[in-house]
Amino acid sequence: MPCNDPLPSWNEGSTKESILKFVRGVTTSGGPSFVKPEERIAVFDNDGTLWSEQPFYFQLAFVFDRMKTMAPQHPEWKDNPLYAAVLTGDMKTVAAGGLKGLMELAMITHAGMTTEQFAKITANWIASARHPKFDRLYTELIFQPMLELLEYLRANLFKTFIVSGGGIEFMRVFAEKVYGIPPEQVIGSSIVTKFEIVNGVPALTRLAELNFMDDNVGKPVGIHRHIGRRPIAAFGNSDGDLQMLQWTSGCAGSSLALLVHHTDAVREFAYDASPLGKLDVALTEAKAKGWTVVDMKNDWNRVFAFEA
Amino acid sequence: MPCNDPLPSWNEGSTKESILKFVRGVTTSGGPSFVKPEERIAVFDNDGTLWSEQPFYFQLAFVFDRMKTMAPQHPEWKDNPLYAAVLTGDMKTVAAGGLKGLMELAMITHAGMTTEQFAKITANWIASARHPKFDRLYTELIFQPMLELLEYLRANLFKTFIVSGGGIEFMRVFAEKVYGIPPEQVIGSSIVTKFEIVNGVPALTRLAELNFMDDNVGKPVGIHRHIGRRPIAAFGNSDGDLQMLQWTSGCAGSSLALLVHHTDAVREFAYDASPLGKLDVALTEAKAKGWTVVDMKNDWNRVFAFEA
Repeated sequence: MPCNDPLPSWNEGSTKESILKFVRGVTTSGGPSFVKPEERIAVFDNDGTLWSEQPFYFQLAFVFDRMKTMAPQHPEWKDNPLYAAVLTGDMKTVAAGGLKGLMELAMITHAGMTTEQFAKITANWIASARHPKFDRLYTELIFQPMLELLEYLRANLFKTFIVSGGGIEFMRVFAEKVYGIPPEQVIGSSIVTKFEIVNGVPALTRLAELNFMDDNVGKPVGIHRHIGRRPIAAFGNSDGDLQMLQWTSGCAGSSLALLVHHTDAVREFAYDASPLGKLDVALTEAKAKGWTVVDMKNDWNRVFAFEA
Repeated sequence: MPCNDPLPSWNEGSTKESILKFVRGVTTSGGPSFVKPEERIAVFDNDGTLWSEQPFYFQLAFVFDRMKTMAPQHPEWKDNPLYAAVLTGDMKTVAAGGLKGLMELAMITHAGMTTEQFAKITANWIASARHPKFDRLYTELIFQPMLELLEYLRANLFKTFIVSGGGIEFMRVFAEKVYGIPPEQVIGSSIVTKFEIVNGVPALTRLAELNFMDDNVGKPVGIHRHIGRRPIAAFGNSDGDLQMLQWTSGCAGSSLALLVHHTDAVREFAYDASPLGKLDVALTEAKAKGWTVVDMKNDWNRVFAFEA
């Protein structure tokens, strides 16, 4: 390992070399792949790419915890099979409700307050809730190699963005602190907010209505809407990231498209399908197009910062 | 005028002093009004605030020019009274169509191509079209005092954003070059875009469907969606900016809310009502709340850079 290795948690090999080579290329002034600093845009999926997503998306744990907190004020929830399943921990019934059911649960827990109230609720939860397997704060389950990658790119004048199917206002609460990504560089799914003056005070109220789903074909749309330039580097881990990787690599010029493949059952989880996503067609396309695929077990000598 | 005056086009007086005092306050480390650099967010309306908006929004000139260019491919437009009015320069009939008519004209000229094609069309137009009164490029009609203000704020570690009712993709084409504001810091109205693979190439296609109207109550919503923090400084010129100014100044802590009042019929235009907007309730509220109001005629010793 060289002195001053910018990616010490990445083992030497073709994966690490593909990253280093790409960055060398776009930062070599006068070289054939040079990209001006202001156009060095890098986009990162969050769940499964920057932090874990098992046994289910961490935002769902927030939804379930929130429902348990709210339940005493909602005795009627006992009569709704889906809501009751959450309260009794019957995850089988919850899963059977599919994405539609989960969206309904998201709405009753994420709407009906101001944006500032929601940020406070989220901040309190993320500061105290613990992961069922690791018994650690969820923010401790961010991937150390990806943190190094974020910092390495920023040191090379990249602007780093999150582009996630997760809730934009959920992620913004912790993204700056744990990833060094400010709120204005977080793109995610959102519900509608409404501006109103309440008792003389201006407020943005969160409504139980979907505004934007930042997943699949939504990712390039969200990128264009928020950034307005095409990224030159994109990082994902599932089929929900496919279009983001296609968009990033679909232009002449140097680009890096990378998938994190979860192959380490000991240190993290090994899977190709999570409760709400899977890695299938994106992996096939990655092989066909020569995208970089991270084999977590073999490419990373450290997964989490808390490891010895 | 002091040496190294950061705002040389602003005359000495209470307007200029209110800006300087605000910036001194939020940048004085340890002082009661200090704001951390990452929270120094400043938002600027575009039409009538950063550049002129008379005889009508410059983007409308783009719409009308575009229709004239497209007309030979659309002989059927002659049979549509609104479209025909544009082609014959009958602005009275166009104005009678109101906002609804203009939105229709915007859709037929702004949709039906990829985002990259639209950017090229816009770039070509903005590089050649000339203002009817001044016979200058539209980008020459940006206000020199506001340029100085943008630079002064950035020198004090503010992040500057555009928040305009104008089209987000229209403004992004020139905002970086003329204002030093990168695409990812431009917020505006938008139409729906759709991701698709066309002949193996990923593309974002612009559809004739409104996505977001970034005006009035939409401005705080757009700010929250794109930035995720509340600005501490907001600059506008019409009632369409009222809610943005309310949101910016509606919190404890130091803030600057400023309205540009067009009072100079000689160097620019003097008006309180433009074809699609007016300055009425926002001016009343500015006086009640002590917001800063720029009297263009008396507060600016220079309006445009091309003046001697």
